[in-house]
Amino acid sequence: MKPKISDVAKVAGVSPTTVSRVLNNRGYLSEKTKKLVYRAMEELDYVPNDLARSLYNQRSNLIGLIVPTTSNPFFGELAFHLENICDSKGFKVMICNSSNREDKEMKYWDMLSRNQVDGMIVVSYNRGVFNERKLSHPVVAIDHYLSEQIPVVGSDNYAGGKAATTLLLEKGCKEIIHLHGPTSLNTPANLRKKAYEDVMCKNGVRPITLEVNEILNKQNQQRVIEQLFNTYPNVEGIFASDDMLAASVIREARLRNIEIPNQLKVVGYDGTEALQTFLPQLTTVQQPIEQIAETAIMKLVEMIEEKDQSEVSYETRLPITIKMGETT
Amino acid sequence: MKPKISDVAKVAGVSPTTVSRVLNNRGYLSEKTKKLVYRAMEELDYVPNDLARSLYNQRSNLIGLIVPTTSNPFFGELAFHLENICDSKGFKVMICNSSNREDKEMKYWDMLSRNQVDGMIVVSYNRGVFNERKLSHPVVAIDHYLSEQIPVVGSDNYAGGKAATTLLLEKGCKEIIHLHGPTSLNTPANLRKKAYEDVMCKNGVRPITLEVNEILNKQNQQRVIEQLFNTYPNVEGIFASDDMLAASVIREARLRNIEIPNQLKVVGYDGTEALQTFLPQLTTVQQPIEQIAETAIMKLVEMIEEKDQSEVSYETRLPITIKMGETT
Repeated sequence: MKPKISDVAKVAGVSPTTVSRVLNNRGYLSEKTKKLVYRAMEELDYVPNDLARSLYNQRSNLIGLIVPTTSNPFFGELAFHLENICDSKGFKVMICNSSNREDKEMKYWDMLSRNQVDGMIVVSYNRGVFNERKLSHPVVAIDHYLSEQIPVVGSDNYAGGKAATTLLLEKGCKEIIHLHGPTSLNTPANLRKKAYEDVMCKNGVRPITLEVNEILNKQNQQRVIEQLFNTYPNVEGIFASDDMLAASVIREARLRNIEIPNQLKVVGYDGTEALQTFLPQLTTVQQPIEQIAETAIMKLVEMIEEKDQSEVSYETRLPITIKMGETT
Repeated sequence: MKPKISDVAKVAGVSPTTVSRVLNNRGYLSEKTKKLVYRAMEELDYVPNDLARSLYNQRSNLIGLIVPTTSNPFFGELAFHLENICDSKGFKVMICNSSNREDKEMKYWDMLSRNQVDGMIVVSYNRGVFNERKLSHPVVAIDHYLSEQIPVVGSDNYAGGKAATTLLLEKGCKEIIHLHGPTSLNTPANLRKKAYEDVMCKNGVRPITLEVNEILNKQNQQRVIEQLFNTYPNVEGIFASDDMLAASVIREARLRNIEIPNQLKVVGYDGTEALQTFLPQLTTVQQPIEQIAETAIMKLVEMIEEKDQSEVSYETRLPITIKMGETT
């Protein structure tokens, strides 16, 4: 039998209410009383029940995290930082991998609500789902607009797109093509494309964007990349909207004996640790992943603690950096 | 104010106990009663409280997961599968990234215990920590021996080491070197080295193993790799005990203008999705990550549900496959 609060109280010679007050650090307690209670807990090998405490305090100190999948290095690294920052602030993290499926996102959302999370961090490509749901607790989104009530944190996508395109132009590329995810999604990442198009037009060059309709679908990616090389055999620069696309571009170029960076220059986006280990030669726009995580949690905690949410800014864009590799 | 069970009971015209029985699916209930309760829940927008239910049922349906970091593609992919399999069985996952630090592992262990987890999955290089802890709930380890009470699930490391070494020999390599993590760790991964040494000796070739003492320390890795190329300039084959080491070997070879696979052949270990996106040309020993996750959860659930733990086998080794790339 696991020891209970009443057992601790008996051994410590105090009332169960006093033990409970020590555990929750409430009200005035003498050092002597605290010591008696701690000694009794140790003696009985008593483990406080955080579930019971959550119910009692009406705060679970639990954050729900919904991501497409931690198999993806960007979300894996993001999840690491989010969890570590939560931990440093006394929050626990319940993790949910939705595989970007609407039905799973809805199930997870309901499950997290039933578990009384204090707040949620959500990365989703499916805007509709969260718009329909009633917000019973604060939510912060990363890099995607989910609804007008849900603030968004991400990298400065416009600056990233601009830096990548400018770099390719400076390196002497004339025909530069942008590979992008589905633009039908209402995401700040569309600004990468907008910046590319703005910079190209400003320099009097025609922008060409090819869209990969199904994000996370490798066959679809591969088809679009092959089409790119077939339709534009003289392409000199490719700005891919994520590093995985950029890696596939490099692979296809190698198969076609196109030399990088001599004949073709490539820039990616994300710059995860995994990328820097496996493909350090890729020039890429590096997202400040740890800072994104920090800002998202800061916002969420503000929303949890503050009643006045008008103070929380709707969108935060954090500065990117260009990580120079050998592909430009 | 959030609606409570008593509010639902009032609207449904039944007792609170009946509502609670509907929520927990306990005892006989007519379809009519269930409908009344569900309709009242919908009307009031009542969200059942899983925390309260966990306390009542003495089962949290919560699994704790301690990994070094989901930033690492292997642990990120493992966490994805573990969580998804848990979800399909009605378990929620609380995730903890220890950065492989003993002090964090201990804090997380205690936190998970306070949160009444039904069980834990642990990936740790620090054997001592868990040995000391009293096991208040079932634990399954992945790829590391933590204590005699904690079963281990992993890939068939001996078969993996054997396959990698045999492949390099068959491809005509004479001087083959093995890069390995710290052998002082008591981990089944040491069998990769054992297999390499056995196969080399059997073929009358001298085995040479270089150790990277601090796993996850890139400077340390880099130093050992440089030392390898300086000391053994005629090396023809390298079997690295993980893909990150293999990627660093490839990078160093490129800097030294050593042609792969003509002058040097390289085989890694792990074969994550991230590797196959970023460095698909690497030949590697692929771990069955999803199967490892499935087996670990199956074992854990058996331990949670079954009282007789003598049935649970201490160690499970799952079959590996060689993924042929362009580096051999």
